[in-house]
Amino acid sequence: MADSRFFAVSAPLPLSRLAEIAEAELIGGADPNRLFRDVAPLDQAGPEDVSFLDNKLYVEAFATSAAGVCLVAEEYVDRAPVGMDLLVSRSPYRAYARIASAFYPEVAIESGVHDSAAVDSTASIGAGTRIEAGVVVGARATIGKNCRVGANAVIGDAVEIGDDVEIGPNASLSHCLVGSRVLIHPGVRLGQRGFGFAMSEEGHFKVPQLGRVIVEDDVEIGANSTVDRGASGDTVIGQGSMIDNLVQIGHNVRMGKGCVVVAQAGVAGSTRLEDHVVLAAQAGLVGHLSIGKGARVAAQAGVMRDVPAGETVCGAPAVPIRQFFRQTAAVARLAKQKGK
Amino acid sequence: MADSRFFAVSAPLPLSRLAEIAEAELIGGADPNRLFRDVAPLDQAGPEDVSFLDNKLYVEAFATSAAGVCLVAEEYVDRAPVGMDLLVSRSPYRAYARIASAFYPEVAIESGVHDSAAVDSTASIGAGTRIEAGVVVGARATIGKNCRVGANAVIGDAVEIGDDVEIGPNASLSHCLVGSRVLIHPGVRLGQRGFGFAMSEEGHFKVPQLGRVIVEDDVEIGANSTVDRGASGDTVIGQGSMIDNLVQIGHNVRMGKGCVVVAQAGVAGSTRLEDHVVLAAQAGLVGHLSIGKGARVAAQAGVMRDVPAGETVCGAPAVPIRQFFRQTAAVARLAKQKGK
Amino acid sequence: MADSRFFAVSAPLPLSRLAEIAEAELIGGADPNRLFRDVAPLDQAGPEDVSFLDNKLYVEAFATSAAGVCLVAEEYVDRAPVGMDLLVSRSPYRAYARIASAFYPEVAIESGVHDSAAVDSTASIGAGTRIEAGVVVGARATIGKNCRVGANAVIGDAVEIGDDVEIGPNASLSHCLVGSRVLIHPGVRLGQRGFGFAMSEEGHFKVPQLGRVIVEDDVEIGANSTVDRGASGDTVIGQGSMIDNLVQIGHNVRMGKGCVVVAQAGVAGSTRLEDHVVLAAQAGLVGHLSIGKGARVAAQAGVMRDVPAGETVCGAPAVPIRQFFRQTAAVARLAKQKGK
Repeated sequence: MADSRFFAVSAPLPLSRLAEIAEAELIGGADPNRLFRDVAPLDQAGPEDVSFLDNKLYVEAFATSAAGVCLVAEEYVDRAPVGMDLLVSRSPYRAYARIASAFYPEVAIESGVHDSAAVDSTASIGAGTRIEAGVVVGARATIGKNCRVGANAVIGDAVEIGDDVEIGPNASLSHCLVGSRVLIHPGVRLGQRGFGFAMSEEGHFKVPQLGRVIVEDDVEIGANSTVDRGASGDTVIGQGSMIDNLVQIGHNVRMGKGCVVVAQAGVAGSTRLEDHVVLAAQAGLVGHLSIGKGARVAAQAGVMRDVPAGETVCGAPAVPIRQFFRQTAAVARLAKQKGK
Repeated sequence: MADSRFFAVSAPLPLSRLAEIAEAELIGGADPNRLFRDVAPLDQAGPEDVSFLDNKLYVEAFATSAAGVCLVAEEYVDRAPVGMDLLVSRSPYRAYARIASAFYPEVAIESGVHDSAAVDSTASIGAGTRIEAGVVVGARATIGKNCRVGANAVIGDAVEIGDDVEIGPNASLSHCLVGSRVLIHPGVRLGQRGFGFAMSEEGHFKVPQLGRVIVEDDVEIGANSTVDRGASGDTVIGQGSMIDNLVQIGHNVRMGKGCVVVAQAGVAGSTRLEDHVVLAAQAGLVGHLSIGKGARVAAQAGVMRDVPAGETVCGAPAVPIRQFFRQTAAVARLAKQKGK
Repeated sequence: MADSRFFAVSAPLPLSRLAEIAEAELIGGADPNRLFRDVAPLDQAGPEDVSFLDNKLYVEAFATSAAGVCLVAEEYVDRAPVGMDLLVSRSPYRAYARIASAFYPEVAIESGVHDSAAVDSTASIGAGTRIEAGVVVGARATIGKNCRVGANAVIGDAVEIGDDVEIGPNASLSHCLVGSRVLIHPGVRLGQRGFGFAMSEEGHFKVPQLGRVIVEDDVEIGANSTVDRGASGDTVIGQGSMIDNLVQIGHNVRMGKGCVVVAQAGVAGSTRLEDHVVLAAQAGLVGHLSIGKGARVAAQAGVMRDVPAGETVCGAPAVPIRQFFRQTAAVARLAKQKGK
């Protein structure tokens, strides 16, 4: 289903191979040699497509889908339409991701430095790396192997970038050390000076921002997001963390491993997220907080206090989710009473 | 009044012509041959300027304005100062827009490809199109007629752009098809991979993002806004929709015709807006919702449920506007009681 | 402590000189000739480092710090560990900023225009100014002395920029006049047309945006922030104002001197901020408001009415802070009652 202008699909795969790739169980009397050519959403899939059900909102679409085979959790198996083969998985979305990755593997890029790029003579560029048109690479910067630096991106002096990193067009990096297998989207701003000044009526006095940004391995940072360097010490994005678009990360924020920060959320200076914290969209955290391991912050929540490990908080000011629901219900009742 | 460094005003226009352009009615005994040279806001306009009143906040400024002629709704005619001519319109703002456009028509641009642009040899550039300095155009991309691609913008491989499109400096487009008469502001990010991964404690697994962004005709997308491509299937910005600055549109969002999305609002994946939906500033919508035709979402509202056509919702979590006002009033009363 | 890849520290300074620079008082029997080499945060500082205490959250870190000397307010002097010298100041953060600036002075930049920059022949570039690779400067633009224009930034036709201005990589400026000592961060969008159109079901009609952006002296604008030009008349950022990352400033906003706007806040069209207004992170202001001198708007507040001088408002819709706390407490109590 993917537009061939933008995506190249690889060869068809037999059902047996799909089951292996997906780490899923092929049930019923399906033909393990049946060939599939592509992935597609439930409402667009045909008999040669693989689809998946991962959200109960779409059970109806599943029940009427023409997909040839579907990745599905056990509980929905009996809702499948006649003629659909089934691959049962405890993580249908992950299973789908594996199959989609098999049909659409990463395309090998042509390495080399475009004529119009301005790479400082003291910079180092690894083998297999592609530097696109208009890229600027500063003095003493080092870029690892098999990286792709998108058109018109700017890599500042002395920045270090690991291997297999992709940097989107028009991104700019300075004062940072970036690990391997990192994906920096277009327009990301990494390492600029943070918002540090001593306020006063006579004029705000700027405080030198002397730290760095450390981006650990396997991180993704979304389009037009901003990560300021530390004021003194570093801003750290922990290994495997995923940051969406238009997110703000203030100076000296330290984020653990595998955190997820959804679009337009913001974290003020010196706040610390332990591993696997999730911040939903447009959430905001004031500075100097500590957010415990696995804590979750709901969309648009305004967090003004530390959050213990494992807690979910909602609302502004944010409170534990059960309290939030009680408050919301209480206010709704109160408004209704008055309405009588 | 406009600074001639940046804007060139055209020749003076007689009152009779202004009435035609504005589709407004010239009332009283005004001289149809009286000449006007420019437009200006009420508090800065002089006798040769056209002004307008469209917001009751400014009735006082209207009543004391020195503007030679003013576009105004019938109800405010009697507040006009002595000596001001009046053009009566049911849509004074639109009428003003027409006249301002007559005084300041779009300036013809010089076409051609700047020497420093890097346009792939397989790309196609239409007649009358201007490609500014530092622009990068990828393989097989097609750009229509009379377009302007701003300096250092990046147009990815196979992107298709219609006629009369303007793309601002430093914008980047990939995996998208753009209609005609579209205005993409500086720094917009269109078509990058969306925030798609299967979460897990052992590491988040990325899901290939195999869709596109479809931008229909007459759309405007504000500075530094981000629109992710579909995960599978497309993200669609419907004909004539207006998107402000710093807006986030997630993968597979489908927006109907004539929608308006104000600054810093965000729409999560797979949510669908019917025609003429308005999202005010900083509103947030979770994924997989359906927002009915003409619905309105207030500033900062957090929408977690479907919204019926024509409904206005406010608050977080968002509720119908009357309920919101009742809740707000009830809480205010409650707080006051306690204060006693 | 700062990474020498990115920052160069100057020569060691004796305690007596540090006291002068900091405008602080050296107390106890400290040796005025003791030499210090660097600044560092409390938990990382050693005997040759200067540190500071400015936030009571860190009193414990102060009490156990190995810093050789610390800038501190009088009230915390008795919490200092044995062996730490003390410089007492009423503004320890500002005092620290002065000392950090002495250890890390602005690095002189090499002036000149990079070969790959595209500077229009009618543009004017002042002495000592550095134009980096890929920069595009339009016709009749003027850039003052000792400026730095970062790689791939775009300066539009007729833009005027004062002296000692730094513009980050990939920023774009048009239709604006910028004062001196201004810092424009990477990815900032200044002067694009605002969100102006007359809405209608038959199609939104664009209103020409004929104003400018005026950025007064000593302003800082954070990464990826957007400032639209006036619709008619100007958008003004007052002298010494500090704007953080991802902030949206609508057309015809007028901001007084010394305002502070924290990350992801937004101000809608024609709203006016008097001097020294503070908008905390993610705050939103509707259009056409007047915010009095020194008023403060809390994080995530949604301001829909004028705010008097000196007032602090919170919540959405925003109310005075005492009322906000009463409301929050009343709702919490109400929810608890119901829980019984």
